Amino acid sequence: MEPSRYIFSTEFAVRDYECDIQGVVNNANYLHYLEHARHEFLVSKQISFIELHNEGIDLVVTKVEIEYKFPLQGRDKFVIRLNLIREGNIRLVFIQDIFRLPDEKLIARGRVTGVATKNGKPVPPGNLISKLGLQ
Amino acid sequence: MEPSRYIFSTEFAVRDYECDIQGVVNNANYLHYLEHARHEFLVSKQISFIELHNEGIDLVVTKVEIEYKFPLQGRDKFVIRLNLIREGNIRLVFIQDIFRLPDEKLIARGRVTGVATKNGKPVPPGNLISKLGLQ
Amino acid sequence: MEPSRYIFSTEFAVRDYECDIQGVVNNANYLHYLEHARHEFLVSKQISFIELHNEGIDLVVTKVEIEYKFPLQGRDKFVIRLNLIREGNIRLVFIQDIFRLPDEKLIARGRVTGVATKNGKPVPPGNLISKLGLQ
Amino acid sequence: MEPSRYIFSTEFAVRDYECDIQGVVNNANYLHYLEHARHEFLVSKQISFIELHNEGIDLVVTKVEIEYKFPLQGRDKFVIRLNLIREGNIRLVFIQDIFRLPDEKLIARGRVTGVATKNGKPVPPGNLISKLGLQ
Repeated sequence: MEPSRYIFSTEFAVRDYECDIQGVVNNANYLHYLEHARHEFLVSKQISFIELHNEGIDLVVTKVEIEYKFPLQGRDKFVIRLNLIREGNIRLVFIQDIFRLPDEKLIARGRVTGVATKNGKPVPPGNLISKLGLQ
Repeated sequence: MEPSRYIFSTEFAVRDYECDIQGVVNNANYLHYLEHARHEFLVSKQISFIELHNEGIDLVVTKVEIEYKFPLQGRDKFVIRLNLIREGNIRLVFIQDIFRLPDEKLIARGRVTGVATKNGKPVPPGNLISKLGLQ
Repeated sequence: MEPSRYIFSTEFAVRDYECDIQGVVNNANYLHYLEHARHEFLVSKQISFIELHNEGIDLVVTKVEIEYKFPLQGRDKFVIRLNLIREGNIRLVFIQDIFRLPDEKLIARGRVTGVATKNGKPVPPGNLISKLGLQ
Repeated sequence: MEPSRYIFSTEFAVRDYECDIQGVVNNANYLHYLEHARHEFLVSKQISFIELHNEGIDLVVTKVEIEYKFPLQGRDKFVIRLNLIREGNIRLVFIQDIFRLPDEKLIARGRVTGVATKNGKPVPPGNLISKLGLQ
């Protein structure tokens, strides 16, 4: 996507223990990075998992799509930039792209779909929408 | 997919340390499970990463799509069933579905695309195809 | 310790994603293995974390000592054998030794100290002792 | 130890995926933190694992002792402070203590013993000693 569309970014550095026997970050760890970046975003919007949970609302990931373009190696620095879009009444979709720093090489493209659930059933995201700056 | 089409399966039990603060398996750990199941499959076909690597061939994941249908909890038993299809000349696609045991509840559907690479460039999978039972 | 003294054992196989860039199991993963083996032991004694938790009792690790003798590699099989001793009125000490299979090579020696806590304060392990077969 | 004796420190923030079902950082993850802090220290001393490895030298952890004093929770900030001492001709011992920030509450005390190895055999650390500022 065009850079101007990202609404949040988080910087990371690869830790050696995140690399596997091939000397690159293990594929599963990218999902950890993406999760951490989403949580940082939600915190920046004053959205508290614990308060939501106490209101009976949980945020749940229903789908992850990730394209691996180029591997990260030990000690690489990188940034995750994200955007957020609605899909229908229920789903929120996080676009999360990973770029190595400082050369801005595209490392991976992620698309993470989530829903709000109440008692285990999907519900419209309600006032999360305004907190998230969506319409 | 219809059950008869799966060509390999691997059984697991959730370990408590794989669960997160919500009491369910953390999303990233499903990618670990899928990876382990693929490696078990390749080993069952006498495909050795190390021999391939010494011939200059590496198997690389280029895309993961996973739909989370229902969460696994601590100590749940489950099975990953897989099938393998070709996509064009270059790509191999692993269909990997996760079912809880013994009730066969569908937990997640995975689709993992990989390529063989030589010196970092994708190459046709060559004699891997016959070893894998593909045509 | 002499083999006859172990009271429980759990078998494992290394998964490739547990190995790091040196091609051996990352040191931290041994703590995961030890934790899983303790939980298997407790389950075998019909001790339920959840029931304990509902009674206000939590089991907490206060100290880990581990000597690494020889590294595990991808796909190695191994067994964790354990014994359990009391230390004073409060502490339980798990002796947990790791042997590669089938050659019984000593891989690591672990000593894990735990306490039962109630409202965050250590308490005597009470009726856990008889369930655990201790005196 | 007295604060003035620490020679290096690294700051961290807990990521939610590092917490387990009890809502606190899983014990094994502290070993990841300690490892990352040691690597940051070695890098600060211009010690390169890869160059060492190419000279046939590997740094290997032979023992970890860690006392858990108080658990870290999601999003806690903390610092690992370290000192380094020699033990005999062969062993290097990292003292690594973890403090929560900003309140400086002691979280854990670690003591990690390592050796340099050549062809799998321990060797005196040689010119590492001067690079590390030891005598």
